[in-house]
Amino acid sequence: MSQGIQKNSSLSFHRNNRFLSAAAGLLPALRQTRLQPVELVDVIAEASQALGWKTMRCALPASLLQRELAAGDEIIVDFGTHCVGYFGLRCEAAGSPPDAPAHLQFIFGETPAEVAEPFSEYNGWLSSSWLQQADIYLDVLPETVRLPRRYCCRYVKIKVISASAKFNLKLSDIHLDTVTSADTTSLTPLHHPDALLNQIDEVSVLTLRNCMQEVFEDGPKRDRRLWLGDLRLQALVNYQTFEQNSLVKRCLYLFAGVTREDGMVSSNLFMKPDVIADDTFLFDYALFFVATLADYIAVTEDQQTLEDLWPVAWRQIELALGRVGTQGILQDSEDWWAFIDWHESLNKQAPAQGVLIYCLMKAQALARRADSEKVTWLEAKIGELKNAALEKLWDEEKGFFVSGAGQQVSSASQVWLVLAHVGDPGFRAQLMRNLLANPPEIGMNTPYMMHHFIDALISVGETQRAVQEIKKYWGGMVQAGADTFWELYDPQRPGFSPYGSKLINSYCHAWSCTPAYFIRKYGL
Amino acid sequence: MSQGIQKNSSLSFHRNNRFLSAAAGLLPALRQTRLQPVELVDVIAEASQALGWKTMRCALPASLLQRELAAGDEIIVDFGTHCVGYFGLRCEAAGSPPDAPAHLQFIFGETPAEVAEPFSEYNGWLSSSWLQQADIYLDVLPETVRLPRRYCCRYVKIKVISASAKFNLKLSDIHLDTVTSADTTSLTPLHHPDALLNQIDEVSVLTLRNCMQEVFEDGPKRDRRLWLGDLRLQALVNYQTFEQNSLVKRCLYLFAGVTREDGMVSSNLFMKPDVIADDTFLFDYALFFVATLADYIAVTEDQQTLEDLWPVAWRQIELALGRVGTQGILQDSEDWWAFIDWHESLNKQAPAQGVLIYCLMKAQALARRADSEKVTWLEAKIGELKNAALEKLWDEEKGFFVSGAGQQVSSASQVWLVLAHVGDPGFRAQLMRNLLANPPEIGMNTPYMMHHFIDALISVGETQRAVQEIKKYWGGMVQAGADTFWELYDPQRPGFSPYGSKLINSYCHAWSCTPAYFIRKYGL
Repeated sequence: MSQGIQKNSSLSFHRNNRFLSAAAGLLPALRQTRLQPVELVDVIAEASQALGWKTMRCALPASLLQRELAAGDEIIVDFGTHCVGYFGLRCEAAGSPPDAPAHLQFIFGETPAEVAEPFSEYNGWLSSSWLQQADIYLDVLPETVRLPRRYCCRYVKIKVISASAKFNLKLSDIHLDTVTSADTTSLTPLHHPDALLNQIDEVSVLTLRNCMQEVFEDGPKRDRRLWLGDLRLQALVNYQTFEQNSLVKRCLYLFAGVTREDGMVSSNLFMKPDVIADDTFLFDYALFFVATLADYIAVTEDQQTLEDLWPVAWRQIELALGRVGTQGILQDSEDWWAFIDWHESLNKQAPAQGVLIYCLMKAQALARRADSEKVTWLEAKIGELKNAALEKLWDEEKGFFVSGAGQQVSSASQVWLVLAHVGDPGFRAQLMRNLLANPPEIGMNTPYMMHHFIDALISVGETQRAVQEIKKYWGGMVQAGADTFWELYDPQRPGFSPYGSKLINSYCHAWSCTPAYFIRKYGL
Repeated sequence: MSQGIQKNSSLSFHRNNRFLSAAAGLLPALRQTRLQPVELVDVIAEASQALGWKTMRCALPASLLQRELAAGDEIIVDFGTHCVGYFGLRCEAAGSPPDAPAHLQFIFGETPAEVAEPFSEYNGWLSSSWLQQADIYLDVLPETVRLPRRYCCRYVKIKVISASAKFNLKLSDIHLDTVTSADTTSLTPLHHPDALLNQIDEVSVLTLRNCMQEVFEDGPKRDRRLWLGDLRLQALVNYQTFEQNSLVKRCLYLFAGVTREDGMVSSNLFMKPDVIADDTFLFDYALFFVATLADYIAVTEDQQTLEDLWPVAWRQIELALGRVGTQGILQDSEDWWAFIDWHESLNKQAPAQGVLIYCLMKAQALARRADSEKVTWLEAKIGELKNAALEKLWDEEKGFFVSGAGQQVSSASQVWLVLAHVGDPGFRAQLMRNLLANPPEIGMNTPYMMHHFIDALISVGETQRAVQEIKKYWGGMVQAGADTFWELYDPQRPGFSPYGSKLINSYCHAWSCTPAYFIRKYGL
């Protein structure tokens, strides 16, 4: 089983209808805003661009009033920003009465690459059905078109595949009715004196906003789903920005509402046709239920939610501890048992040990409010696991934690064991300096992993270095033209995709929106 | 301007709201019948088949209950007969919860060729938008799919373009809700002792039935439109079969309801978004308004319709006579001024002269009921035109009428001047015998032209030969597997298309349904 695929379709699940009702009662309203294109653009190959393409304005949208499109003609409209919503336009015939259906094709791109490179050449391993396109046939003209699916784009390529020799097409009223559950009126603008940090904050906030729908989605293009690992980070940014805490609460109740027979929360949920737990279970994501609840309670002091959900959180702790071996170290395995990062070669043992300890500390914070009898026990367990990590995973010679039978040195192992407060503060600071000075070959592939790296830097007092890394990494995306932060970004390999094609990467991805959290929370 | 294209988009039209209201009041109800597939089939290349393909049963539809389809899988369902209607099915996921949209493609074929040969290779000059296909993306499963457009098919290829590695698809409740305004309960079955003639009659009747919608359509796949040349023949078959004469009346009022500023009726009408006259005007088709009205009145004796529409009919006569030159012969031209047949090389002058005389005789029949003062005048005019044809177009040496500056000999010229009763009965009988014995190089391309050939044979008493020709020509289509009669059929060139590809030909075409008229009217 490779990373990214688990199939456990014969599992049974437990549904807690009280929790699901509570979640349903918190369904947010979606706010709709109509956007018009700001430009018509050409897409031009440009090797210096991160994704290989740049756009160039070729006309203003008003020029369409005078323009007739024949079979083979295409235009690319640019909405000027990243949008999530419903696309529509008006299509009229010019010339003789239309004597054949009009066949139009729409291609939606978060980036210029998606409207430039033909989808027919896609060869990734994720379903090509995620590539956003629609073919429509208009039997009667004029027609007001509103595509029924929600799309996620800045650019829309509109191609006339066929009409007839007797008529052309005129397009007007091209628009996108954007949707979000984020209430931007509740947002305080940052006005940061550092222009790049200010821009990084804006892009972070738009990323979060466009992922805020009926739940916190991971990415509005793909997978459009509630993933626990993303939720945790979105919630952190939300507390510093929109403060729509009831949406976090709703998502916690949803995860608690459908659990595996043994009580484990799923890594992700589907909302339609009903709330369905995916059959993918991840060690770290399940533990993040505890962390997300702890963060929520710390912000809201919502005692009722704590009382409702503490047993669910505790069950994740019990299940996770079941994987700890006699020597106090997590059992490793070859399958996709923990996420940590999108990295085919990454061994998950040591970083997952860090996640476990980190979440036990979160559980301890919850226990202090909800279940004080467990505090001391947790304290002891945390100590045991930390000591085991130092004894069994630390390689004094290398100056790094190692992971798995192969004693792999990875960035992820160091970052997570620092975040787990393994070793004293001086040890951890030295470890982070070593990591900065001698980055291991097994590095970090995602903004998600980068978030934890920044968090670890700040935790050891390397705040300036954290700012520098944020400006380099997320700033690099901004400079590459990102309106929203990307699911994947490796400055050395800008076209990297764990899915086999950059076209299927998500370019507005929840787990990438955390600079606003760091900047605002720590006053960077 | 080549045959098949006229563009006159700056014309003005006159709308007669009284006529359009009368037509609207005659809008027929559509009858709906749900059909299920009878088989799943494979399509196999077979050079001996007229269109190059045969089908072979590979499974029964019930087998789908046990079958899971993955990306790349496809099935072809066979509804067992030619259908016009709305397609639907139920699509469910099997396996893990669906973690990506399901992308399905549907290809609809009246013939096996359309589901066998990729549409991507289509290179005809008619719009590829007529090729019947749909791509859908199902974001949520299970889903009950009902495609919004009306399709015309016997076969449907269903291909799973993409799903994901985590789930497969199960299809069920595949159906077609067929629609027609024909009331089959009013039809008397023929029970002809000749099995082939009986089958030809059945196929004729199904062809007419599937073209009977809110108007008499020319072809339910393409163009789905009311053409006057088709209407005239459909009406003749209708009087012998469904006897839904009010639908003929509706179509006559529609043509009379939107005319060119000078009163000429269009060759064809669009029904949506409103009644719109096409800007294609054809000498012969406009005259067929007169013939269609005369046939309708002869059957119904509907005096009110006659009084309403006689002025419109008369106007067509006046306009047509305006094209007659000083020597009593129609002026020829290079553009597409008359239809006659789908034949790039056919000169239209002599056959159009025949159509004019034929329709003047129809006008005379109407004048006897509606406008007796014109009867004598028409008699004289018919005489003049017949004499001119004999004097100017007859080539004694060749034994054929000739047409145009090039003195072209064509089947169409002989057929139409025989139907116009030019020359005495003996002359015409001899001419038809010569035509049978020495078919000209410029022959007949369509069942439409073949209809007039059969009509001409019967008119000179060659009834047995007419039966023989019907069995050979339409029987040839039946033997090639036609459920309904094709728009184009040349036994020597079965793949012939005036549009550059057999895939875009219509395989249920109104003008081909006339054997039932001949068989039933003449008791063949």
